[in-house]
Amino acid sequence: MMTPALNTVPFVSVEHMMRIVLAVGVERVLADLAGCIEADFRRWESFDKTPRIAAHSLDGVIELMPTSDGTAYGFKYVNGHPKNIRSGRQTVTAFGVLADVGNGYPVLLSEMTILTALRTAATSALAAKYLAPPGARTMALIGNGAQAEFQALAFKALLGVDRLRLYDIDPAATAKCLRNLAGLGFDLQPCTSIAAAVEGAEIVTTVTADKQNATILTDNLVGAGIHINGVGGDCAGKTELHPDVLRRSDIVVEYAPQTRIEGEIQQLPADHPVTELWQIVTGRVPGRREAAQVTLFDSVGFAIEDFSALRYLRATLAAYPFFTELDLLADPDEPRDLFGMLLRARDRAA
Amino acid sequence: MMTPALNTVPFVSVEHMMRIVLAVGVERVLADLAGCIEADFRRWESFDKTPRIAAHSLDGVIELMPTSDGTAYGFKYVNGHPKNIRSGRQTVTAFGVLADVGNGYPVLLSEMTILTALRTAATSALAAKYLAPPGARTMALIGNGAQAEFQALAFKALLGVDRLRLYDIDPAATAKCLRNLAGLGFDLQPCTSIAAAVEGAEIVTTVTADKQNATILTDNLVGAGIHINGVGGDCAGKTELHPDVLRRSDIVVEYAPQTRIEGEIQQLPADHPVTELWQIVTGRVPGRREAAQVTLFDSVGFAIEDFSALRYLRATLAAYPFFTELDLLADPDEPRDLFGMLLRARDRAA
Repeated sequence: MMTPALNTVPFVSVEHMMRIVLAVGVERVLADLAGCIEADFRRWESFDKTPRIAAHSLDGVIELMPTSDGTAYGFKYVNGHPKNIRSGRQTVTAFGVLADVGNGYPVLLSEMTILTALRTAATSALAAKYLAPPGARTMALIGNGAQAEFQALAFKALLGVDRLRLYDIDPAATAKCLRNLAGLGFDLQPCTSIAAAVEGAEIVTTVTADKQNATILTDNLVGAGIHINGVGGDCAGKTELHPDVLRRSDIVVEYAPQTRIEGEIQQLPADHPVTELWQIVTGRVPGRREAAQVTLFDSVGFAIEDFSALRYLRATLAAYPFFTELDLLADPDEPRDLFGMLLRARDRAA
Repeated sequence: MMTPALNTVPFVSVEHMMRIVLAVGVERVLADLAGCIEADFRRWESFDKTPRIAAHSLDGVIELMPTSDGTAYGFKYVNGHPKNIRSGRQTVTAFGVLADVGNGYPVLLSEMTILTALRTAATSALAAKYLAPPGARTMALIGNGAQAEFQALAFKALLGVDRLRLYDIDPAATAKCLRNLAGLGFDLQPCTSIAAAVEGAEIVTTVTADKQNATILTDNLVGAGIHINGVGGDCAGKTELHPDVLRRSDIVVEYAPQTRIEGEIQQLPADHPVTELWQIVTGRVPGRREAAQVTLFDSVGFAIEDFSALRYLRATLAAYPFFTELDLLADPDEPRDLFGMLLRARDRAA
């Protein structure tokens, strides 16, 4: 349980996060996260929504993603720097905070590099639950980097996908993925081209990372009836799919105002029709309607998913208390006496 | 010196911050901070500027204040909840992060409740250096809450103000202020009314806190030639000065687009002329021009001041290493192998 001290904030480090995920089980965490995200998407209208606040530079972007449901407030700090790989750093790192709207005090600070990888995969699988062909078991996984295994396990946990066809421009990435996923219940097939990978796949996940417009999927590679889970295109100037693929697909997004800037649909006119995932989750719009339909989840990651993830994490700490208390907030004996707190610290030291 | 580990971020707790401030000396910190803010205001045009991103609720507000100079990026989380006093909490608490724009990695996480109190006072004194009557030694301090002592010491450190006339609607607040400032080189005069407090004062600082429009200073109380340092009015619907006072004053603000929403000037038409402090600091606009002029610094607090404060703090840690390293960032041996890091943690635990 949390200590009720006013001046400390529970902090979940990277090490803590790994212990929590291992204690609960990765697939269980992914399924639970998808459940939390689904529950929050059902009450979509109760959230403050704003596109993320981005600070772009030549090398990358730093973003703040805040949201609130009127009771809790959450935000995530996240960067995206493709060149980081070369200096042994993560392309994307993140941390986040959950706070009490009633008094403004933070109630949780957490690493979110791992948590973002988990919630991104959980959101993809949640979308696929409504959009993929019923009974789909085979997924092409194009891009075998940091997000790949999480996607694979989320689709296994939520949809029962257990046949993976892997491709990466770098065979070492595919080899890493094969190593990591061995023994986890998949039939794993490395492929030597994108065309080979999509063959026979009912779901195609693209999760490549490069800060530029790339064409991972061209129209001729996309057969009738498949579901495309487009995860890698997630900022202005960074896309993975040929516009012809988009024009043939029924497109589902998280939050249209943000996705039109950051997603695959930045390649389309601003009025191209899209459905927001919450509309499908709440039953206002049907998911997959027919067998031949090509569906696309144009994933960019939205603040509410991080909020859901932080809320899930906070609840999980009750059973898995892997955190420390951080002395983050000044707590003078008398709230107006901030300076006096300083004087008393001096007297204690003397 | 900082540890160069890729996965950890130096963290300055409240306790650390107090140790740093006491080791350096409060007045020295205030003067150094004012110097950093002044230096950053001189290169105003090199900063990304955006009004803060606020999440308002019935009880208060939670804000994110980001900025960047293209090399470093900083943001502050800050709340404002006037009712917190009743539950023994701070009205305003804050923490902040400094990051490297080149790779997006945070390089410092710090408490900012104390640091904000310091930078707010330093900014006020910096403005007064250019705006107050030359040789001013007497200041009325109206509102004797958490910010009062910091204001007093900043004006002492930067301008030599050593005579204080204190007033608060709550005599206990004034008594607290008198206690805390005793022996610090001030001639202290408690007053029983605002009118008594402003008598003979060359500088009037208003720093009351209530989430509403109040009228602390009416026009008849404002004599010719004084400088008003208006600190308490800092969000929409929260002001301290009668509009007649504003109309008689030459008004200086931090960043006009933000101050027109949050400052005293929210009471004036949107085209009422104001000067931004950086214009005075850089010499583009003169500060005080004549003895009879009434000047007003309409302080609301701007992101660049927090950036300056975080940058000062980071530099200060080299000489005063009061911080711990926080395991905030995932650092897999191979950057693309986030999932493998999890597997290796499992193997270590087994």
